[in-house]
Formats: sequence, C-alpha cells, structure tokens
Amino acid sequence: MPAISFLECSRCAKHVSADTPQTVCPACAGALYVRYDSDSLKQTAVRPDGNATQSMWRYASVLPEVEPVTLGEGWTPMLHSRRHENLWIKEEAANPTGTFKARGLAMAVTMAKHYGLEKLAAPSAGNAAGALAAYAAAAGIEAHIFMPRDVPMANYLEGVAYGAHVTLVDGLISDCARMVAERKDKEGWFDISTLKEPFRVEGKKTMGYELVEQLGWTYPDAVFYPTGGGVGLIGMWKAFEEMEQLGWVAPGRRPKMIAVQASGCAPVARAYREGASVSKMFENAATFAAGLRVPKPYGDSIILDIVRKSEGTVIDIPDDRILESLLDWSRNEGLLLCPEGATATAAYDQLIADGFLTPKDRVVIFNTGAGLKYVDTLAEAMHLTRTPEKEYPERVPVGGIITPQ
Amino acid sequence: MPAISFLECSRCAKHVSADTPQTVCPACAGALYVRYDSDSLKQTAVRPDGNATQSMWRYASVLPEVEPVTLGEGWTPMLHSRRHENLWIKEEAANPTGTFKARGLAMAVTMAKHYGLEKLAAPSAGNAAGALAAYAAAAGIEAHIFMPRDVPMANYLEGVAYGAHVTLVDGLISDCARMVAERKDKEGWFDISTLKEPFRVEGKKTMGYELVEQLGWTYPDAVFYPTGGGVGLIGMWKAFEEMEQLGWVAPGRRPKMIAVQASGCAPVARAYREGASVSKMFENAATFAAGLRVPKPYGDSIILDIVRKSEGTVIDIPDDRILESLLDWSRNEGLLLCPEGATATAAYDQLIADGFLTPKDRVVIFNTGAGLKYVDTLAEAMHLTRTPEKEYPERVPVGGIITPQ
Repeated sequence: MPAISFLECSRCAKHVSADTPQTVCPACAGALYVRYDSDSLKQTAVRPDGNATQSMWRYASVLPEVEPVTLGEGWTPMLHSRRHENLWIKEEAANPTGTFKARGLAMAVTMAKHYGLEKLAAPSAGNAAGALAAYAAAAGIEAHIFMPRDVPMANYLEGVAYGAHVTLVDGLISDCARMVAERKDKEGWFDISTLKEPFRVEGKKTMGYELVEQLGWTYPDAVFYPTGGGVGLIGMWKAFEEMEQLGWVAPGRRPKMIAVQASGCAPVARAYREGASVSKMFENAATFAAGLRVPKPYGDSIILDIVRKSEGTVIDIPDDRILESLLDWSRNEGLLLCPEGATATAAYDQLIADGFLTPKDRVVIFNTGAGLKYVDTLAEAMHLTRTPEKEYPERVPVGGIITPQ
Repeated sequence: MPAISFLECSRCAKHVSADTPQTVCPACAGALYVRYDSDSLKQTAVRPDGNATQSMWRYASVLPEVEPVTLGEGWTPMLHSRRHENLWIKEEAANPTGTFKARGLAMAVTMAKHYGLEKLAAPSAGNAAGALAAYAAAAGIEAHIFMPRDVPMANYLEGVAYGAHVTLVDGLISDCARMVAERKDKEGWFDISTLKEPFRVEGKKTMGYELVEQLGWTYPDAVFYPTGGGVGLIGMWKAFEEMEQLGWVAPGRRPKMIAVQASGCAPVARAYREGASVSKMFENAATFAAGLRVPKPYGDSIILDIVRKSEGTVIDIPDDRILESLLDWSRNEGLLLCPEGATATAAYDQLIADGFLTPKDRVVIFNTGAGLKYVDTLAEAMHLTRTPEKEYPERVPVGGIITPQ
C-alpha cells in the first residue's frame, strides 16, 4: 500500500496534508481527493490476479497504507444479463450491509481508526447509515446518524442493531446534514458525510477498478450509475484516471457515464438539461428509490463535469417506470434489484429506445444494493398484503398491483 | 464436469438412474445422493485455484455435467472474528436472495431445466421459497410455493416479485409439504422439496468444499450449522467424503458437526438427547428464527447419524438468547446475523462455557443468511418502533428492548 502524498482539492487544486484528519478544502470548501506519488506508485502498484484477496482490498496497492477495517466488502459479482447480450449488472447487493455504501465507509472508517477518531457523524438517505454503523461497530468507534424518519425500516433497524446513535428526522437528507453541521463541534463529532472527507470516494473508486478488471482490463462503452450523492461515479472516474496512469487498462475511450435519477428528485438531471454547472435544491423531493432522495448533492458540479467529459448523459425516471423495470428484472432475470438499480435498468431501456445507445454497446449497470432492504417500501409500492390460505394469487402484472385473491 | 453414474439411496443403497428426473428412493423413500464414477473423477476432477470461477461453480469438476442456471451463488466470504482467534463466520448472506438456499436451488433448478421440467413446487419455511422463485425466474420455469402465513415479509415479497405462485398457509412447513404432496400429481408439479430430489444436497455440498478450501484445504475442528431441514449439514458431510477420496483435503479428523436448533422447535436436539435415531413431530413449534421452524425434518436420521459419527452434538437455544447473541455480534463485530446464524453463535458460547470445545478449537459458524431478510421479525423482537425527531435513543441493551425516547 502506498503512502499518501497529499490531498488535492477537486475545485482549486490546493494541496493539504493527510497527516491529520481533513474535511473539505480549507480555501474553497471543495471536495478533497487522495493523491499518491505517481512515480513511486508505478514502481509498487501491482495489478491483481487470481491470487489476490477476494474483496476490494485486492487493490491495496492503490489504496492508503493502513490496516483495513474489513467485513469482506467489494469484489462483487458481475452478472451477465440473460436477455441483453452486451449488458452486465454489477451486483453490489453482495456487499456487507447489502449495498455499495460498504466500500466508501470501510475505507473512511479505516482511516478514522487510523487517525484515532472516536466519534463519527453522518446524515444518510438510509444505506450509508447502515454501513457507517456496521464499520463503526467493527472498529469500536461511536457513530451518530441522522436520517429521514421514513427511510426503509431496514435502514433504521440496522443502525440501531449495530449500536449507533440513530436520530430520525422529519425531513430529508439535507435537513439531516444541517443537523450534523450544527452540532458536530459541540459534540466532538468528525463529519463523515459524502464528499466532506476524502476517503469515501477513495473506497468507492474500487468499483471502477473492479468493473474494468472483470471485463478483462477493458472499458465498457457506458456505465449506468444511480446518482444520489454521486460518490461512486466520482470515484470511478478517479479510478479510470489512475488506471490509465498505471497502464492497467487497455487504451481506449473511457465509458460514457450515465447518471440516473428518479423524476421525483432529479436536481442533477435538471441542471444537465439546463446546461448549468451546479444543481439547484429540488423542492418537495419524493421517490420510493430512497437512496436517490438527495435534493442537492454536494458533488453536483463534479458529477456534471464528468458526465459531460465522458459524453454521457443524465436521465430521470418516474417511480411507476422504476417499479415496472424492477418487476421486469425480477420476473425475467431472477434478480430483485433495489429501486435505485431498477432506475438504471429503466434508463437503459429508454436510452436504447431513444437511440442514445445501441444493443451492441457494452454496458455495465450498477445495482447499488439489495432489493431486500426495501421490503416495506416495495410492499407498499406493489400494494402487497398478506392474506393466508388464499391460493393462486394473480401473478404480479408488470408495473402493476397485486392483492392475492 | 463429470457424468452422473447413478443416484444412490442414502438408506438402502439402491441404485437409480439419473437419466430421468427422480424424487426419493422407489424402494424405501430414502433420500437419493448423486454418485459419480470415482475412478474417472480422480482423472478429471481439478482442485480449484485462484483462477477458478468466483462462485460455487468453481467446483464444476465435482458437480453434474450441465449448463448452470446461475445468479453468482457461492464462494462467499469467510470472515475472521474480531474477538475469537479461532472462530470464522461463513457469511452466506452474500449469496443471491441473501441466503445459503441459493446453492441448493441453483443446482436443483439447473437440473430441472436440464430435464425439461416445466412446473416446480416446494414448501418452505421462507428462504428456500425466495431462492426457488429466483432461479425458476432465471430458468423460465413455473414455481409453486407454499409457506407459513407468518414468514418474514421479505420471503413473501420476493416470491411474488419473482413471479412465483405463492400460497400462504395458516400452518407450518409440515402443513405446506402436505399441500404440495396432495396436489402435485393433479397439477403436474415436480416436487423440489428438501431431500425429496437429489440435487439440493448436491448444491449445498459446495459449502463443505468452500470452507475446506478457504482454510487452506484443511478441516476445522468443528462446524456449527443452524439446522432446520439439515440439507447443508448432509451436503457438507458428502463433500468431506468426496474430498478425501480425491485427496483434496489434508489428512486429519473430520470436524465435529454441531447441529443447532431453536428451543422453540428442537426435534433433532430432543432425539439426540434421547438417543433416538429419528425425531418425533415437535408440537407447537414457535421461534423467531423462522428457518429453524421445521417440526420434523425429512433427513432427521441422516443428520443424527452424521452428528454422532463426527462426535459432534445437537444443541438448542431459546429465542431470548438468540436475540442476545445477534445484538452481541452486530454491536461488537459489525455483523448483522440472521436469527438462525445467531442461534449458532449463541451455541458456540454455550459449548465453550460447557467445556465441549475450547477457544483453541478452530471453528466455522454458518451465518445462513442476511439479518436484513428479517426486518419485520427483528423489529418485533427488539420492540423497535420509529419515533421521529427524538434524538439519542437509548443504545440497545444487549438482549433487551429499545423504544427510542
């Protein structure tokens, strides 16, 4: 594992030392990226092979030099679609706590332990909370979590079960973030929010390394990424840059990055269509894809910049079409995607229909978590009730409603 | 992949052809095991290395020669406990559908597709239903599922989402099994129940191969297995026998097999204590470890025989101690076990306290599924309700109850 040279501001390029815990750029409040000495990295970094660890720590040679707090995160399956010859699902449900959030928080909690931090705090739309709580429990660190009162029950339950201090807020993640910001100094919390410290991106970048490794060290033509906070998209782009510097990826065009949002909360899609470089607060955000309910992501400008550079796009999908795609994939492929993942599969169908992509394009879609974490939300969306001893319920009409007869 | 020589009855050793679909032994109704030609297997079987497939199909050379219906099952993490130096958790939550049931049903549905079967039926305590529904959806086969009306909501939801015909029954898995048995001929269903066809065991045996491979091709001293139907325990024992024949495992004593049940449904534990060779129907079975709610497992005599041959034991744990251990592991190790898995961790503590094992014994505990599949059950057991905007709820007292203040 390489030593960190410095942290670099993504906005003003200022350098900050990583010897002590850092939050955002002290000059301009931009998100900080971890940078290594690229000459020494070229000497030491090793492209993993079959004997590498079966987790995201197979990329230890391009991650900070620390003892990992690990629960076995990463190195998730890349599943080939049964119906679309050139489509793969990156199945992040296989992670600890059932979502991709495990990667960023494994790395961030690892660094928090390395720095000797004792109390971490974060707002969450749901899944980050569970991952923070799990890794904090594993590391013996206190976690303080603020999340909307109506997150899927699984998110609340896991936070409590892992022993975190959970506060439910009658509002959105933006309200939760304000509560953390207001209290952290008094309480002595370190703010481990999305993009407000450098290491969640650094953990999430492993998704970029993995998808390229799993495609034989080549790029796909497009990557579909359900975008709430957008850290994974930002992390993958960083990974592509690093892999190119190291010569790990076959030369070629970087994938089109497709940021996918729910129409009920689509600040980045709106900014993209308007040609803006930042988003505006999306009022009255509402979608059953809970993880996409981020009304103004902190990294909006970075996301928009990456999407444009990659010649990708930002697209939003209404809830009824998200559910339709979720049931389509469960019934026809045997995969119960999370609503966020199904937003991306619906977006794929639309971009094929629009001609933005063709079925020949090699595409990776991120299913960011387990559909099983959304049982209450999904049951409500599917109007599913349990009536015993009634046989042969109607099959679920695609996109429709079932009450067993 | 090897050709199947024949199916062998586990009870009377009768041979049956695998050329057509088989259920149980036509002579004595015993469970059938898949047998390969051991001489040719020794020529062709290859112990996997780092380049093998990252799923249970890495053992293809000791599985039937067919095109797999796969969703990426198996090759799950082996997690080292943070507190117990010689204890590992085999984390089956990382499987598709979030449980170990994926292995047996991937193999059984693969064979059903191979045989051209069009309609499958099974009773289930919950998780097998989800796995059957998922693999049937992937294979394009109809699934008919009968499960208790009070299974965790996740089990019902996934069955419906995958497009299976789900019937909820006001009874236990034994009632569900009777309904399948009564209707299958008329409906043209193939009965894919636990041990009533040969291939669920064959898929589950991969757990035995994996744990030995992950321990460097050596045996642990003991394996803790939450035992409802017991197919995994039976499958692992078959794997040990095969690995010894192939010379894949370092010579040594096979592990003590510890079958773990919930005190609210402990037919095998009772039979074990009474020195019986079969179990009796356990009346009024009730436990929140839903997967252990099997009042008389079809394979009881095989389970008891294996436990005794291995010098293991059968132990049962009351629900309050299961919950206590579940919270202990979530708060101190960052792992949200399923109730069945927590039954095994509680059993470990007890067998250490009793002196049956010592902390020096190398032990593998199966966490058979994701705690997240039990959100409703766990919320009820933890007396967890959501009250918004109340901060700093009490930390969950271990084994206790929380209502956020």
